[in-house]
Amino acid sequence: METAYVLVSCDLGSEMNVIEELKRIDSVIEVHGTFGAYDIIVKVQNPDRKKLRETIILNIRKLKYVRSTLTLMGIPEQS
Amino acid sequence: METAYVLVSCDLGSEMNVIEELKRIDSVIEVHGTFGAYDIIVKVQNPDRKKLRETIILNIRKLKYVRSTLTLMGIPEQS
Amino acid sequence: METAYVLVSCDLGSEMNVIEELKRIDSVIEVHGTFGAYDIIVKVQNPDRKKLRETIILNIRKLKYVRSTLTLMGIPEQS
Amino acid sequence: METAYVLVSCDLGSEMNVIEELKRIDSVIEVHGTFGAYDIIVKVQNPDRKKLRETIILNIRKLKYVRSTLTLMGIPEQS
Amino acid sequence: METAYVLVSCDLGSEMNVIEELKRIDSVIEVHGTFGAYDIIVKVQNPDRKKLRETIILNIRKLKYVRSTLTLMGIPEQS
Amino acid sequence: METAYVLVSCDLGSEMNVIEELKRIDSVIEVHGTFGAYDIIVKVQNPDRKKLRETIILNIRKLKYVRSTLTLMGIPEQS
Amino acid sequence: METAYVLVSCDLGSEMNVIEELKRIDSVIEVHGTFGAYDIIVKVQNPDRKKLRETIILNIRKLKYVRSTLTLMGIPEQS
Amino acid sequence: METAYVLVSCDLGSEMNVIEELKRIDSVIEVHGTFGAYDIIVKVQNPDRKKLRETIILNIRKLKYVRSTLTLMGIPEQS
Repeated sequence: METAYVLVSCDLGSEMNVIEELKRIDSVIEVHGTFGAYDIIVKVQNPDRKKLRETIILNIRKLKYVRSTLTLMGIPEQS
Repeated sequence: METAYVLVSCDLGSEMNVIEELKRIDSVIEVHGTFGAYDIIVKVQNPDRKKLRETIILNIRKLKYVRSTLTLMGIPEQS
Repeated sequence: METAYVLVSCDLGSEMNVIEELKRIDSVIEVHGTFGAYDIIVKVQNPDRKKLRETIILNIRKLKYVRSTLTLMGIPEQS
Repeated sequence: METAYVLVSCDLGSEMNVIEELKRIDSVIEVHGTFGAYDIIVKVQNPDRKKLRETIILNIRKLKYVRSTLTLMGIPEQS
Repeated sequence: METAYVLVSCDLGSEMNVIEELKRIDSVIEVHGTFGAYDIIVKVQNPDRKKLRETIILNIRKLKYVRSTLTLMGIPEQS
Repeated sequence: METAYVLVSCDLGSEMNVIEELKRIDSVIEVHGTFGAYDIIVKVQNPDRKKLRETIILNIRKLKYVRSTLTLMGIPEQS
Repeated sequence: METAYVLVSCDLGSEMNVIEELKRIDSVIEVHGTFGAYDIIVKVQNPDRKKLRETIILNIRKLKYVRSTLTLMGIPEQS
Repeated sequence: METAYVLVSCDLGSEMNVIEELKRIDSVIEVHGTFGAYDIIVKVQNPDRKKLRETIILNIRKLKYVRSTLTLMGIPEQS
């Protein structure tokens, strides 16, 4: 299984909106608003890593109000 | 339930070691090595937020080879 | 008592404006313009931490001209 | 009155120790441990800005276990 | 030969577009989309360093959808 | 004499424009475009530190195309 | 083919030493010292992505004098 | 003339020491301690850019107590 964690910064005040949109995306298995250096943390998982990448590039990063993302690619041998 | 995500940077080459230690800590429910700006992502959860804080301060941050941590406190209303 | 410090970056030139708005927000007990990596530091305090979070999310972060915020949640045992 | 806020990162696990030391320093009027991008926030105040600088350079930055500091100089016209 | 590596952040969702434009620029000899702290890495090479600088300033940085760039100037003695 | 160094990030492609504007500002005694983490470095000097602050806040930060600034306040005892 | 770019920070003054060591590592196909936010850029390539990861974790990150690394995983569809 | 600005972070408390050492280095034409994100700013100038690079790599970066440096290479056409 391929896993990625995406740390999202979004337009101030749009957090709930973005969280709702993120939850509807396939392969997104966890979404949580956070305080601190990033606004939302998203866990994405898919057995096919090409699909995983597409989810991040085409679905998460293209969401309205998402301002920037920092992707941490999971290391399968380290989970 | 109170949740925090701790982004860990550790001494280079000590990743597997630190991951094993993290998994043994109470309240730590997920540990994953990652490539990118941080080396390991840790999810911590406890109904008592004082306990949650103690886990981060006394258990995670005091681990040998852990160099720095960035804590994202989960917002309960945004999960 | 729950405490948070919010480090604010705002649109260049809007500092005085944002400072005035921040001072009018409930639970905001200190506002100070600063030179350096952040433009304004805000201290927020409320006995109810749900209220504290709402102040940050709904009042501070939604202010016009506020560009980004970095929230440091105070640790009650460390004050 | 001259004011500065010093954001302190310290050796992991030394927070309580550093906080106690900081509280004993003249001109230091507030110390709070925080979760997030920095470990401790310190407010320093002195009518004489040369004194204020000395406090930061000679007392805070030279404390054992203090790893790095980021100083935000307050803007008197913006408080 | 003078070499520079330009780390590009672009508008979310515009990656393929920007990559295509970058490939058409003279002196650009390698373009690769990446996950992590930057979206695209660009290698630029030219025997004339004034030309190299112009490529970065006038061609890469002025591209539509390019949001920010971080340039690493290669050290000829260290390749 | 009070000195500050202002590290400026500006809209991509507007560098020459911003540099010209900066040179016309009183108290600005040096302006240089740079490659790397910041686009322009500005040295500001004035015997009156209130004036120095005003130059940064009202003149430099309010310039069109200036996107963000990081101010390093010089320490008179360390020059 | 799987590609990664590793941005390396090393102990000050050890650059040439680290560059020589990096060049001897299998899968490392390009090494260049740079000025700016990172000291050395390394391009790693291998058809087997498990091998690629091992090169980064076991060979590059464990090198003496390497202080920290930031890995940008190439996106095969964007090259 | 080739110009570079080097932003230096040094061991806490060693500022005066490092500043004195920096002033003795050839091609270093300005040194100033600063508050904020970096501890010392150094201006280096030499008509020969190979010499300039050597000054940064062999003299400044190898100084005792210097912890990290961020070099901004001046753009001759933008001064």
